[in-house]
Amino acid sequence: MMGNTRFSSSGYGSRKTIDVIIHMGNPFLIQIIVTFLKIAIVAAVRVAAEEGYQCFRKGSVSKHNFKQTFTKICKEGAYWGTIAAVYIVMVFLVEMFLGVSDWKNSMLAGALTGASISIYKDSSRDKVVVDAITGGAIATAAEFLN
Amino acid sequence: MMGNTRFSSSGYGSRKTIDVIIHMGNPFLIQIIVTFLKIAIVAAVRVAAEEGYQCFRKGSVSKHNFKQTFTKICKEGAYWGTIAAVYIVMVFLVEMFLGVSDWKNSMLAGALTGASISIYKDSSRDKVVVDAITGGAIATAAEFLN
Repeated sequence: MMGNTRFSSSGYGSRKTIDVIIHMGNPFLIQIIVTFLKIAIVAAVRVAAEEGYQCFRKGSVSKHNFKQTFTKICKEGAYWGTIAAVYIVMVFLVEMFLGVSDWKNSMLAGALTGASISIYKDSSRDKVVVDAITGGAIATAAEFLN
Repeated sequence: MMGNTRFSSSGYGSRKTIDVIIHMGNPFLIQIIVTFLKIAIVAAVRVAAEEGYQCFRKGSVSKHNFKQTFTKICKEGAYWGTIAAVYIVMVFLVEMFLGVSDWKNSMLAGALTGASISIYKDSSRDKVVVDAITGGAIATAAEFLN
């Protein structure tokens, strides 16, 4: 994703070289976007499958329901995708500050993600702490399971 | 975890060797137990941290509360540990049947785990399907994040 263009001009016995590097995006930014998309798709598919099953059970599909479901799919996808992207950034920051890479990083990154999402949602201080604990626990569990 | 004991006896110009292998358990069983314990500890620590924070906020610790909290810690630990152990078994089974190892295995194993835990809890058919979808989504997301 990084364009590297080189212009050369020779003359008067000397050789001048100009390197022009065009940043199409750095690998970390791409990783964030890919993670966002992956988790957003997982969340969207989950909602779509659940709503699809409900429709199948009821045996009726109305236009109004379809619109509502589509909105829910987009919202859930964006929400979980954002959480995943924030988590990736937090993992990067924690690794940068602590220098090592183990399960404690995941725990800390999870806790920071939970807290930051909670703060963004204007939650109370108690809710922020609980979300931080939950985020840390989920990230640690995911790390241990893989 | 595998004991290997060797008895040797020399005499009459010949050497007899008897190998005795004591199975302390197979590696897969140990993996299941370790996963159970790891996730149980994560879940227990989560509850302990949350309850500890509530106590800290209220500023009071009674003996009754302590007993209740301890029961909750044990219950949550056992519950999430069991889910993790079932997931590990499902991953093993799915890999055995499908032969390959990728994110689809995690999804399928997660779905089977969600469904089996739900069936064990005597949930309705709708709840089983929803739990299977949720389990699959969580397992896939965890696989993608790591």
